[in-house]
Amino acid sequence: MRVFTIGVALAWVALLGFTTSSLEAQTWRPPADNQRCPSKWGAGDERGAGNHMKPATVLRAAQLIKTGETIELSHMLAADMPLQSTRQFNVHTKRTVMNQPSNRRGSNEELLTSEVGQIGTQFDGFAHQSIEYSHYNCFKTDEIATRTGFTKLGIEKVGTLMTRGVLIDVAALKGVDILGDSYEITVQDLQLALQRQNLSLQPGDAVIINTGWSRLWGKDNARYMKGNPGIGVAAAEWLAKQDPMLVGGDSPPVEVNPNPDPQVSLPVHQIMLVVNGIHLLENLKLDELTGKKIYEFALVLQPLKLRGFSGSTVAPTAIR
Amino acid sequence: MRVFTIGVALAWVALLGFTTSSLEAQTWRPPADNQRCPSKWGAGDERGAGNHMKPATVLRAAQLIKTGETIELSHMLAADMPLQSTRQFNVHTKRTVMNQPSNRRGSNEELLTSEVGQIGTQFDGFAHQSIEYSHYNCFKTDEIATRTGFTKLGIEKVGTLMTRGVLIDVAALKGVDILGDSYEITVQDLQLALQRQNLSLQPGDAVIINTGWSRLWGKDNARYMKGNPGIGVAAAEWLAKQDPMLVGGDSPPVEVNPNPDPQVSLPVHQIMLVVNGIHLLENLKLDELTGKKIYEFALVLQPLKLRGFSGSTVAPTAIR
Amino acid sequence: MRVFTIGVALAWVALLGFTTSSLEAQTWRPPADNQRCPSKWGAGDERGAGNHMKPATVLRAAQLIKTGETIELSHMLAADMPLQSTRQFNVHTKRTVMNQPSNRRGSNEELLTSEVGQIGTQFDGFAHQSIEYSHYNCFKTDEIATRTGFTKLGIEKVGTLMTRGVLIDVAALKGVDILGDSYEITVQDLQLALQRQNLSLQPGDAVIINTGWSRLWGKDNARYMKGNPGIGVAAAEWLAKQDPMLVGGDSPPVEVNPNPDPQVSLPVHQIMLVVNGIHLLENLKLDELTGKKIYEFALVLQPLKLRGFSGSTVAPTAIR
Amino acid sequence: MRVFTIGVALAWVALLGFTTSSLEAQTWRPPADNQRCPSKWGAGDERGAGNHMKPATVLRAAQLIKTGETIELSHMLAADMPLQSTRQFNVHTKRTVMNQPSNRRGSNEELLTSEVGQIGTQFDGFAHQSIEYSHYNCFKTDEIATRTGFTKLGIEKVGTLMTRGVLIDVAALKGVDILGDSYEITVQDLQLALQRQNLSLQPGDAVIINTGWSRLWGKDNARYMKGNPGIGVAAAEWLAKQDPMLVGGDSPPVEVNPNPDPQVSLPVHQIMLVVNGIHLLENLKLDELTGKKIYEFALVLQPLKLRGFSGSTVAPTAIR
Repeated sequence: MRVFTIGVALAWVALLGFTTSSLEAQTWRPPADNQRCPSKWGAGDERGAGNHMKPATVLRAAQLIKTGETIELSHMLAADMPLQSTRQFNVHTKRTVMNQPSNRRGSNEELLTSEVGQIGTQFDGFAHQSIEYSHYNCFKTDEIATRTGFTKLGIEKVGTLMTRGVLIDVAALKGVDILGDSYEITVQDLQLALQRQNLSLQPGDAVIINTGWSRLWGKDNARYMKGNPGIGVAAAEWLAKQDPMLVGGDSPPVEVNPNPDPQVSLPVHQIMLVVNGIHLLENLKLDELTGKKIYEFALVLQPLKLRGFSGSTVAPTAIR
Repeated sequence: MRVFTIGVALAWVALLGFTTSSLEAQTWRPPADNQRCPSKWGAGDERGAGNHMKPATVLRAAQLIKTGETIELSHMLAADMPLQSTRQFNVHTKRTVMNQPSNRRGSNEELLTSEVGQIGTQFDGFAHQSIEYSHYNCFKTDEIATRTGFTKLGIEKVGTLMTRGVLIDVAALKGVDILGDSYEITVQDLQLALQRQNLSLQPGDAVIINTGWSRLWGKDNARYMKGNPGIGVAAAEWLAKQDPMLVGGDSPPVEVNPNPDPQVSLPVHQIMLVVNGIHLLENLKLDELTGKKIYEFALVLQPLKLRGFSGSTVAPTAIR
Repeated sequence: MRVFTIGVALAWVALLGFTTSSLEAQTWRPPADNQRCPSKWGAGDERGAGNHMKPATVLRAAQLIKTGETIELSHMLAADMPLQSTRQFNVHTKRTVMNQPSNRRGSNEELLTSEVGQIGTQFDGFAHQSIEYSHYNCFKTDEIATRTGFTKLGIEKVGTLMTRGVLIDVAALKGVDILGDSYEITVQDLQLALQRQNLSLQPGDAVIINTGWSRLWGKDNARYMKGNPGIGVAAAEWLAKQDPMLVGGDSPPVEVNPNPDPQVSLPVHQIMLVVNGIHLLENLKLDELTGKKIYEFALVLQPLKLRGFSGSTVAPTAIR
Repeated sequence: MRVFTIGVALAWVALLGFTTSSLEAQTWRPPADNQRCPSKWGAGDERGAGNHMKPATVLRAAQLIKTGETIELSHMLAADMPLQSTRQFNVHTKRTVMNQPSNRRGSNEELLTSEVGQIGTQFDGFAHQSIEYSHYNCFKTDEIATRTGFTKLGIEKVGTLMTRGVLIDVAALKGVDILGDSYEITVQDLQLALQRQNLSLQPGDAVIINTGWSRLWGKDNARYMKGNPGIGVAAAEWLAKQDPMLVGGDSPPVEVNPNPDPQVSLPVHQIMLVVNGIHLLENLKLDELTGKKIYEFALVLQPLKLRGFSGSTVAPTAIR
C-alpha cells in the first residue's frame, strides 16, 4: 500500500500546492499522519479517551449522586425524528404469532432498518471519521473496513461509561434560549460559562455544551438539521487540551455547522475523533438539565456492543 | 370489539372445555382479564414494576458502589451471535463518503436490519407478550398495534433503570458450571442460594439468576438456542411476590425451556410481563460476575427510546 | 372462525344501519361474499382472469408482431421515483469484494429494502386487496396471511403473461395531453375512444387506458401521487364485463382518485381484484406508445415469482 | 488516478513476477485494459452484446412461435431458496390496513430486504464484475460506484430482451440427468450437442446450457450452492466468438465452479461480462424445457429497470 499512499499524497500536494499560501493563516489543516501517530495512548490503541474509564473515575462520579434523581438526556427514536438525508428509520411490526398450547401466548416483535450507529442521540466511535483515509491512531480505511463492519476501532470496544459530567451552558451565559444559527462558540465563552457556574474541568470529564438547539427537535426538524451553532476549531483544540473522556452537545454535530471557514467541512469531527481520539456525543436532549440548572452530575452512557460499528445510538442519563 | 372478544372467549371455552378437567391439577392457566386487571399499579398504567424506579431506589443502588469497578453484562451484537430463527442481524457498511473541502474528511456509517428490540442481551417490554390478545393491564393487541409499532406499552416509556442488583447463583448452589439442559429451578433453589449468599430480596430489586448457560454463547450457539434450564411457574410466582423491578437471566427466555408441562408455552413470560408487569432481562453475560462472586451491586440499564417497540437490546452493567 | 365472522358482520351492520338509506342511490357497495363466491373460475381458483393465459392467447398476440419493434412501458426504479408514503426504496451498494486468485476478480452487488410488490410500474395480485377481510374467491385474510407472506393468492401463481394489448387513449379522444386531475372516465369515453381507434375489445385482452398522467412521473412527483384521473365504478363494471386478462393505466391506482363519491375508497380496486379477479397494472409509462399511436400490440409481462407476495414490480413491453 | 493505477499495477507485477513462469501455459490471465478497450461496440458503450437487441432480432424470435406454448424458466423466489452466503431474502408482511369508508377496503403489502439484482434466476449486468477495479469497456469502479448504485453500466440500460433461444443439452449428450459435480464442459461437448440437436448458433442468440443442475434446487440446496459443472475458459472463449446476446445456464455461475485451475476464480465471469460484454443468465430452471426436448424457441426476458444495479432477478420464458 506504500505506493498508493505516496502516490495520493503527491497528487494531493500538487492539487493544493498553489492555492493555499494565502489561506494558511485562517484555515485549519489536518495534521499529517506522522504528526499525530502513534496517539498519546500508545501505538495500536483503539480506545482513545475511553481509556479514562477506570474505577477511580466511576467512584468520583458515584460520589456526585446525592439525591438519586435521574435526568434523561436522549430524544425519542422514531420515524418522525430529525434524520440526516442519507439515513432512515423504518420500523415494521411483525404480525402477532399466537402460540398453540393451552396458555395461548401471543408474541410480538418488530423489524428495524436503520443506521443505528448514527441516529437519534448518538455516540461517535473512531471508525466514523477519517482524514483522507486515515483514522485515529492511523488505522487505514481499506485495511479495517469490510462489507459488514470494521475490524478495528469498532464501537463494541467502548462499554459503559460513567464519569463526572459537566454542563457548560453557553446559551445561559449569553442570556438566550438558543444561540444564533451560525454562532461559533469561542474559548472565552467556555471559560466564562464555567466561571459563571463555579466549575472547572478535570481530565476524564464528560463535557456537555448547551446551545439550546435541542429545543427545535420535533418542533422544527428542517431547521434542526440545516445547520447549527457550536464549537469551532479554536474551542475544540482548547477542549482537547483539557483531556476529557468525551465532548457532547445538543445538535447533530456538536460543532458549528457549516464551519465559518468555507474551506473546511466539520473540522471538529477530525480534531476530536481522528487527531485526539475523543468521542463525540450528539443530539443530546438538554432542556431538563438546563431548566434545573444542573451543571455537575454523574453521567452514565451505555454504547451498544455493535461489533465493528462506527457508533451507537444511546440513551444517556445524568444522575445527581 | 365486545362482540369479537366474547365470541372468541366462547370459542375458546368450547375448544378446551372437555379436555381440561384431568389436567387442571398440574397445568398453569393464565388468569382471566378480570382476575388481573386493573394491575396493582392502577388502571391505564403502562410502566408496571418500572414504577419502582424512584430517587430512593437509585440512591440505595449508588450506595453499593464502593470501588467503582464495572462489570459488563452484555454479549457482542454480531451476525454470528445466537439468534431465534425468526430474527436476523444484517449489517452493511455504507461506502466511505469523502467530503471535498480541504480537510478531506472521510465519513462512514452502516445500515442494520434487525429486530433490535429482541436481539442479543435484551430487555422485554409489555407489548412483547399477551394472553390471547390481551396484554399487561388488559391493553388489547388490535387496539394498540399498528404497522409501525405499538401506541401503548412501548419500550420508550421505561428510561434508565438503576437499582440494587442481586445475583442468585443457582449453578454455584448446585456445584456445577451449568445446570442440566432441562432443569427447572425451584423456589427452594432460590431460597437456599440466597441463604448461601447471605442476602435477601427487597422490593424493587433487579433479580438476576445464574444457570451458567451464558458459557455456551458463541461456543455452541445451536445448543444455546435449543432449550435451557431456568425458573418455572412456581419459582416465577414466588419471585413475583417479592415485588422486583425486573427478573434477569443468562438464557434466551430466563425461564426453563421447554416447560416441563407440554401443555404450556413459556408461561413465565405471561406471569411476568402480562400478569404482573415485571420486565425480563435476557441473554445476560454472567461469567465475570459469578467468577468474582459478586452477588450484590448497582445494576444500570438503559433501554433505548424506541417508540412503540416491544423491547430493546441493552448493554447493562454491574457496578460495585 | 365462524363466531368471529358473524360477530364482526353484526357489528358492521349495526354501525352502518342508520346512515345508509339516503346514500344507497349513488354509493357503490361491495357485494356480500355469497353474491360473489365462488368466482366464475371455480371455487378455490387463485388465478382469476389469469386463466385467460393459454397457448391460443399467446399465438394471437404473437401474430400482431409485424416489425419486431419493442416499446418499453415501465418507469425507472430509483429512490427518487414517486412513492406512496408507506413505501420506500433504499439501495445500498455492498463494497467491492476482491477475490484473491490470480485473475483478481472484483465483485459487486447491492442490497435493496423495498415493498417490491408495490413499487414502480407494478402488477397487483389478489392478496393485495380485500372487502373487509375477504379476498378474491372469499379467501380470508387471517387464514392466508403469515408474517412472511400469503399462503394463497400469491403473485408467484401468475407467470409470464402475453396477450393482445389494446391501448384506449382517452386523453387523445378529449384532445388533451393530460386529463383533468379529478376526471372520472365514463363508459362512453371508453366506447368512443375505441370507435375512434377502430378497435373492439376481446375476452382475454390487456386493456391499457391512457390519461396522460405518466407525463408527470419524475417531473412533478408530488402531484403525480396526490390524486389522478381514471376510471370510476361504472367504467370498471363495464370493463369487467368485457372479460379482460388485466386492466392497466398510467397512474398509481388506474382508477380516479379520490373517487368522486367520498363514501368510498378506491372501489375499482375491489371491483377488479376482489369481485372479478382481474389484475391491475399500474404506473405504466405510456408516452412512447401514445406518441406513436400504437393502439394494438402484443403485451408481454413477467411478474416475478415472489412466493406469497401481493404483487410484483414489472417491466412490461409492447411489441408490434 | 493515474498514479494510483500505475502504482497498483507495479505492485501487482512485483507480487506475481517470480511465481508465474511455470503456470503460464495453463492459467488464464485477464487481458490488460489496452488489450480489451474500447470494446467492439465502441468506446463508452454500456450495452455490450445487448446491442444485438434490434427489431430484426425480435422478429426472428417471434417467427419461432408456432403453438403459443410458454415454458417458465425461473425458480420460486422465497426465503428457503439456495442463496449465496453473503445474500438474504427477508420478507415481512405489513399488517393489513383497513380503510375507513363504507367499502371497507383492506390493503396488504410486504417489505423485502434482499440483494434483488443477484438472487434466484438472475441476469448479470456489467457493474457486477471487474478485472482488478476495471469493468467492461474499462469503466473504473471508483469512478462509477456510489453508496446507492453505479452511475454507469446499470442494469436499467438493458430493457426487454427477445431473441432466438438455443438450448444446448450437454447432460442429454452425455446420457445423464446431471453432469458430474466438477465437470468442465468442453468446446467439443458444445459442438457435438448442437450437432445432435441439428442446430447451429447465430449471432445474437441466447445460448442456454443444460447441465441438469437445476434438479437440485429446493431438493439439496447445500450441494446446489457448493460447486457445480459448467463451461470453463476454453468453452467460454469459443462461445464468445459465436457472438451471442447472452449465455445462460442452470447453476449459480453458469461456469464450472470451482475452476479446475486453482489459480483462477470464476474466470468465465470476467471473459463474458468484463472482456466481451456478454450478459450471463443464471439459476435457470430447465427441467420442463429439457423434458420436452425444446431446443429452439423465442426467449423473452425482462430485467427490471433498477437504476444503477449490478443485475436483476428475472422470470424469463421460452415460447414456441
